[in-house]
Formats: sequence, structure tokens, C-alpha cells
Amino acid sequence: MKLIDGKAIAAQIRKEIAEEVQQIKARGGKTPHLAAVLVGHDGGSETYVANKVKMCEEVGFQSTLIRYENNVTEAELLSCVDKLNNDADIDGFIVQLPLPKHISEDKITEAIDYRKDVDGFHPVNVGRMSIGLPCFLSATPSGIVELIRRYEIETSGKHCVVLGRSNIVGKPAATLMLQKGYPGDCTVSVCHSRTKNIKEICLQADIIIAALGVPKFLKSNMVKDGAVVIDVGTTRVPSTETKSGFKLTGDVDFAEVAPKCSYITPVPGGVGPMTIISLMKNTLLAGKKEIYK
Amino acid sequence: MKLIDGKAIAAQIRKEIAEEVQQIKARGGKTPHLAAVLVGHDGGSETYVANKVKMCEEVGFQSTLIRYENNVTEAELLSCVDKLNNDADIDGFIVQLPLPKHISEDKITEAIDYRKDVDGFHPVNVGRMSIGLPCFLSATPSGIVELIRRYEIETSGKHCVVLGRSNIVGKPAATLMLQKGYPGDCTVSVCHSRTKNIKEICLQADIIIAALGVPKFLKSNMVKDGAVVIDVGTTRVPSTETKSGFKLTGDVDFAEVAPKCSYITPVPGGVGPMTIISLMKNTLLAGKKEIYK
Repeated sequence: MKLIDGKAIAAQIRKEIAEEVQQIKARGGKTPHLAAVLVGHDGGSETYVANKVKMCEEVGFQSTLIRYENNVTEAELLSCVDKLNNDADIDGFIVQLPLPKHISEDKITEAIDYRKDVDGFHPVNVGRMSIGLPCFLSATPSGIVELIRRYEIETSGKHCVVLGRSNIVGKPAATLMLQKGYPGDCTVSVCHSRTKNIKEICLQADIIIAALGVPKFLKSNMVKDGAVVIDVGTTRVPSTETKSGFKLTGDVDFAEVAPKCSYITPVPGGVGPMTIISLMKNTLLAGKKEIYK
Repeated sequence: MKLIDGKAIAAQIRKEIAEEVQQIKARGGKTPHLAAVLVGHDGGSETYVANKVKMCEEVGFQSTLIRYENNVTEAELLSCVDKLNNDADIDGFIVQLPLPKHISEDKITEAIDYRKDVDGFHPVNVGRMSIGLPCFLSATPSGIVELIRRYEIETSGKHCVVLGRSNIVGKPAATLMLQKGYPGDCTVSVCHSRTKNIKEICLQADIIIAALGVPKFLKSNMVKDGAVVIDVGTTRVPSTETKSGFKLTGDVDFAEVAPKCSYITPVPGGVGPMTIISLMKNTLLAGKKEIYK
């Protein structure tokens, strides 16, 4: 069993990005600039955005944080998006989700210029990913395939079972594993809450991507010997073992599943650290105008 | 075994569309107007476009056919697309594929205003379909789910195996069968040329959508009793039985597979007739501005 060390890979990529930014600056190029829009004071969102801003500093990007209170109107937020779309200095930006209920997340997402949509949530980027055209890949699925690539895990002709069909993980991860080329060329099965024989299907998997959001869902009797297991779950489970009073818990019962795997990601320290780094990669691509002119 | 009569369903929908168009005209509304752009003289394309124009007449749409010779430049074609985008009388239009090799199909497709993209090939429509937002569904997958809906075939929790991963059939059909709601909520597996154990996977399927383009690929020993089989294959196989010298042949070995099925589509007369009717449905939606304002 080999542990997939997302933390180490993310640190490696962070270094690669930082070096490229230094080179860009050295030859007088433009410093990539990411803006983040944060609405309200949700604990999770505050942490995510703070980490993104901090990571920008670490790799040498410029960053701008724009804050609104929870009572911001949809019109105000759309006007902010419009300004960022038209600000030539901003290469990419994100509007941190979730948004308050009186604001349509779909409307905000679609208002973002897809050429600056470094979260990869805009329909143009989702559609281009599906078709197989260059695009901004959304962070979590991008992080998953990057881990597979860096560990040189074989994918061609393998059966990849994706647990979960969310728009931000399950569906795009399935799409990427299905694409022609490497990583990809998998036979892909997608299971979800309506699937009747999930155990039977998981037992056929060479690669399992677990993204149901159900702590410790995947048990050892659902995994065949030598499988690769990627755990995307990050549920906060109450715990007396930690200072914070909770513990990030994956969708995989790691203790019992790990011994059967050829490769497995831990939680935390697996897919998680790759997510922010994927956003940084997109921002670098945006800064270099490598995907869209 | 019940035969899925695509011809009859298509005729029924054609009637429904024609009635709605009559009502629209009766109350002084705008007649839906479809334009088709045809480049060159490819036999298949000529036939497809002629059928589309004819079907427009049958349901009461206005139609415009724009022809170019094979030597049209990409710039000329882009300029034509631009004109159609800006022509308020045109509700929707298609550029018949394939295009000559000196013209980028991706570029032309992306130049079409997604609000007039009744073929559903533009990344915005592909992306919105994937996310589950209202959009123009591309014709073949839309026809497939419509057949399932009209025959009230159960889909929730069923295992749907899609053979083929093309952008215009396999991938979107898989996406639709995976969506929440009806038809949908399937466990979906996508197999393709790289799949190793295709027989074993097909044998698990409650529903098989065969879109590999390999005549008579699916044999009876790959299908479990009671399965629903949707055959999207339409390969022209040389034949002495027909006047034309060829016979449209599906991906399913109908004679041996049909007896095992609960439902099966024939070729021809199954998915085929649904394809044009799906384009008509999109044109009606475009005329009514029901999806995009």
C-alpha cells in the first residue's frame, strides 16, 4: 500500500508555480492577479478564502479580497462581477460559494467572464471540459487527476467508479477519467444515492473516487485487492481528539480499506491540499492567457 | 419484447409541434424560423439538411437554407454565423457538420450565439446540460430520453450502460441518464474502445444505449433478460437487398438480441426519426424564447 501524499505534491507544485512567477516577473511580465469575493462571515468560507489569499502570497501572485455583508443584493454582487470582468489587471476571480439564499448562485456564476472563471464553474468551462477542449478545470477534479498523474497511476482501460454525482466533484471527475489520453481512457461508472448495488459495483473498480460526503462510507468489503482509492470526502465529524472539537473525516474507512489498496489518499492531506493549488494553477494560466486570449 | 416505435413517436411529436405552431400563428405570434447552413455537396449532409427543411414545412416553421461551396473560407463562414446571430427573424440555426478540413468545426460552433444553437453543440449548452440547467439538448440524446419518457420506461436506480463516448451521443446520453429526476437517476457506466470487460459490464445493464458505430456489435450473450436496448448505430453496410445498395445497420444484432429484451429500438425506425424531431422541438423552444430570453 502506497500513501498518496497530497500535501507533498501540492508543495511541489506550489514551488513550480512560484518559480514560474519569478521568471515572469524577472522578464518584466505581468504578475498574475487573483481576486476573491467573500459574502458574509461563514466560518468555512472565511477559512477557504483566507487560505487562498495566503497561497497567492506564497507563490508570488497579487491578490485582492472584496468583502460584502450578508445583506448585499444580487444586483450589487452582479455589478461587482461586472467590474472585475472589465478590470484588465484582474486575471481571474472567484466568488466564494455558498451565497446567501436571496442570491442566485447560477446567475452569479454565469455572469463571470468565462475567461476569468478560474473556479471552472461557468457553463462554458464545464462544456469545454466535457467536449475535451482547453478550459479552466474546476479545482477538486483537477487536483484528483493531478495526483493520479504525479503518481503515474495507470488509467487506460481501468474501471473507475465514481461515488457521487455533484456538479463540482462527481460529474467532472467522471468526465475527466473518461476522456481520451492520460489520465483518462477509463471505463467509468457513476454511483449515487439511487444506486442499488453500490457494493457490487465498487468491487469491480480498479480506481474508486469517493465523493458522496458520507463519512466512512467505503468499507473494506467493498474494495478489491490492489485498488486505487481517492477520498474526496471532508465531513466535519465531532471529535474529542482535536482542539477544534471536530475531525475532518473522509468517505473512506481508511483503517480498514488502506491495507487492501495499491494507492490511497488520506484525509486530511490527500485531495484537500490539491484543491487550492489547482486554483493557483488556473490563475497562472489566466495570467499567461494560455487558455483564452 | 416490445418494439420502441420511434417513427410513431416522432410522428406524434410532429403533430404536437404543428398544433402548437398553429396556435401561435392564430394568436398573431411569430412563426419559428430555422436556418440551416450547408457547405459542399456531401451526400449524407445533403439528405440530412433536405429532411430538416422538409420537416420545418411540415410543422409550419419558416426555414432558410444557406449554401456554400466547399471552397468557402473560415472567415466567410464566420461572417455568415455572425449575420445569423444578429438576424432577429432567425430563432435558431445549425451549421451542418462535417465541414471541410480547412475550417475549424470548434471555432464555428463556438461562434454561434448559444441562444440560437438549436443543435446544442455550443459549450454553453453542453455545460448547462451537465450542470442540469435549462438548455438546448443535442438532438440524438434528447431523442433517446424522449423515447424512454414516452414509453414510461423506469429509470430510477437502474444500471444504464452507454457504449461509446462521443461528444454528440455517448457523453451527453450518459449525462442525461445520470441527472436527478425522470428520465434519469440511473447508475451510469460508460464503455468504449479501451474497455476491457465490455461483455461483463453489459450483462449488468438494465438499459443499454449502444452508440459505438460498430454494426451488430451487441450480441445476445451480452444482454441480460428483460433489458431495455436503445440502438443509436446507423452504419451504412453494403447490401444486395436494397435499391440503394446499402442498408442502415445498428450497433445491435437485432435478430438475436430482441427476444431477450423488455424493450428495443429497431434500426431504422428507432432513434433515427427522433433526431430531426428533437431539432424541431429546440426550434420551437427558441421561437418561444422559452430557454433563453
